[in-house]
Amino acid sequence: MEGYVEKIKSLIPYSGFGKCRLKGIFVIIDGLGDLSCKLLNGKTPLEAADTPNLDNICKNGICGLQQPVLSGITPGSGPGHLALFGYDPVKYKVGRGVLSALGINFDLKSNDVAARGNFCTIDENGQVTDRRAGRIPTEKNVELCNILREIDLPDTELFIDTVKEYRFLMVLRGENLTGELIDTDPQIIGKKPLNPKGLTSDSDRTVNIVKEFVSKAHNALRHQSPANMVLLRGFSKKPNWPTFKGTFKLNCAAIAAYPMYRGLAKLIGMDILETGQELNDEIETLKKHWNEYDFFYIHAKKTDSAGEDGDFDRKVAKIEEVDRHIPKILDLGPDVVIVTGDHSTPSLLKYHSWHPVPVLLYSNRCRPDNVERFGERACITGGLGPRFPAQDLMPLALANADRLDKFGA
Amino acid sequence: MEGYVEKIKSLIPYSGFGKCRLKGIFVIIDGLGDLSCKLLNGKTPLEAADTPNLDNICKNGICGLQQPVLSGITPGSGPGHLALFGYDPVKYKVGRGVLSALGINFDLKSNDVAARGNFCTIDENGQVTDRRAGRIPTEKNVELCNILREIDLPDTELFIDTVKEYRFLMVLRGENLTGELIDTDPQIIGKKPLNPKGLTSDSDRTVNIVKEFVSKAHNALRHQSPANMVLLRGFSKKPNWPTFKGTFKLNCAAIAAYPMYRGLAKLIGMDILETGQELNDEIETLKKHWNEYDFFYIHAKKTDSAGEDGDFDRKVAKIEEVDRHIPKILDLGPDVVIVTGDHSTPSLLKYHSWHPVPVLLYSNRCRPDNVERFGERACITGGLGPRFPAQDLMPLALANADRLDKFGA
Repeated sequence: MEGYVEKIKSLIPYSGFGKCRLKGIFVIIDGLGDLSCKLLNGKTPLEAADTPNLDNICKNGICGLQQPVLSGITPGSGPGHLALFGYDPVKYKVGRGVLSALGINFDLKSNDVAARGNFCTIDENGQVTDRRAGRIPTEKNVELCNILREIDLPDTELFIDTVKEYRFLMVLRGENLTGELIDTDPQIIGKKPLNPKGLTSDSDRTVNIVKEFVSKAHNALRHQSPANMVLLRGFSKKPNWPTFKGTFKLNCAAIAAYPMYRGLAKLIGMDILETGQELNDEIETLKKHWNEYDFFYIHAKKTDSAGEDGDFDRKVAKIEEVDRHIPKILDLGPDVVIVTGDHSTPSLLKYHSWHPVPVLLYSNRCRPDNVERFGERACITGGLGPRFPAQDLMPLALANADRLDKFGA
Repeated sequence: MEGYVEKIKSLIPYSGFGKCRLKGIFVIIDGLGDLSCKLLNGKTPLEAADTPNLDNICKNGICGLQQPVLSGITPGSGPGHLALFGYDPVKYKVGRGVLSALGINFDLKSNDVAARGNFCTIDENGQVTDRRAGRIPTEKNVELCNILREIDLPDTELFIDTVKEYRFLMVLRGENLTGELIDTDPQIIGKKPLNPKGLTSDSDRTVNIVKEFVSKAHNALRHQSPANMVLLRGFSKKPNWPTFKGTFKLNCAAIAAYPMYRGLAKLIGMDILETGQELNDEIETLKKHWNEYDFFYIHAKKTDSAGEDGDFDRKVAKIEEVDRHIPKILDLGPDVVIVTGDHSTPSLLKYHSWHPVPVLLYSNRCRPDNVERFGERACITGGLGPRFPAQDLMPLALANADRLDKFGA
């Protein structure tokens, strides 16, 4: 399946860097989309929120609802973001191991193999009785990681890092390693962890090293309780993708408080700007670097966490917080502003969902529609359509920034 | 990349020629789409225009907005038309040389190689100082073409024709010629014209001939000022595409005042009807040949020119002119009428743009939507959708003309 990244490279004679210095900002409000909530009189959090600033841009902008992957498909944060950045998430897959590494800011090298680990519980027959070892506290995890770190592997450097609770990261660094391995996690209880196994002919060395690691980990943890074994999944190497900069000819900077989103941006070659933990810090970072880049990606995380906690009111409040920062962004005079989310996280479901995500695009070259309020229902009749592919947004951003030449005579 | 042309051939058992003699008309209003204009109280020219006849069909028809190429992509006139005719413009590319030949009605043979030429200015070091030689008047161009026509090339017939101002057409006719050459136009000033170079292994002969032409042209023009050199681009042969008639099983005629549009229609094998320069002449031609064809393409050019001149009022007037001719078309009793444009040409931008183009489809088999006024904003909520692929229109036209059989049992 060809993504916009390929299509656009083959199609368009680019105006290239700095032709006109039109600047764009992509505001990604994590988990923005939601469902009607009885607690909010049948409104969604976005509809219930007081968002005078977003509504104001709506009136001069064009709206719609986008789908990050495909109809009915619930995107992870990785695919959700990649689609917004113009990368077909079905083609550009990030392994879970790599995502875990990005998530804790591990400095993954190009030949490292990363895997996501679970501390689990096995019984005397070696069968898994709890895939999450009773969700041990993070402090226990730290202690167990210290034990695993003592493991010696032939000609291979081993990195073990705590992620959270029962989750840890394993990274192998050495020659001739591959990420083409099946998971050792059987995914159900009552089965033994699966034996490490390669998916390609050149995976023997890696398989042997992982076997040795698993065996030594089993030995080292055998007297621990309840976490007395490890399960590994998502073996993967850092992918070698076309860069955002090379593809779209934009100098782009990412401003994100959370490591995973910085990591994702780094994967496609965006510059990562140091910033603080709050939205306000991100806006200050934006101001500080405003003259240095053509395009900025700003990430607002807390809406998603509120949705995952099923906290309607907090989600409303977090959306209103984003809205209060909108004037500061507009004061910089961006030529193109896009506001959307990487997926929906309905407070009712407390998890990511497949529901299309509201989008607002503003530039002085856009063709305003009749949408006057930024919300799920209002965006249905927007000019961008009610279920359009998220990958359309980058070409639209470029077009609105006068960055694309005409196709054909 | 598969276009509708291929898809439909593989999918659909056609009813074939003349099954039921339902007749269709495709009215293409060049550059129809536009943006909100302050001068028109925030309306687009189409929204501001008084179009009682189009609005009347709207009430019984189905509307929407189509994208000729892809989201954010600004189509040239070639790709814009091809998409409407069901040809994937990404796959069916016309070279600039061929388009130039079509534009001046040059009778291109299947083995001819055409290139678009610029008269340009070079300095004593051979570096281009003006790619358009100060936009010399067409009269000077005619004079320079006469000089170039004297050039002798080995075993190759040379045709040189004036296009306009600094633009000319070069055609090579002979054995074993190919259009697979890079442009000699360096695209920026301060560089020498690029040496002719082939893109394939069998291009040696053509490369040598073009080198000889360029060298002799340089010599012949060296005492001219400011146009003392030539730049060539878009080397191409007339493509050998599936015909419209063969694909859609329609006897189709093109009625277009401007040569380029006749040429485009000829490329896909439509019959070209002789007509005059005005819309009224085109309608007379339509009446005259009404009984001879299943399907007519009528082209209205002047809306696009008004948009390119940034002349809102003239664009409004030209749209109203088309509207006044609509009853004459309807009087003929067509079974299917489609009205749209090949791209948008916003008066504000004075150039083609990526914005979706309003579409109106009427037949007594269509399912009317709630759109009651033909305009950009009104069409957003039309039944065809706010950003659908232009290539959908031909299958819809065929279906509405009862030309397609059921797919599958």
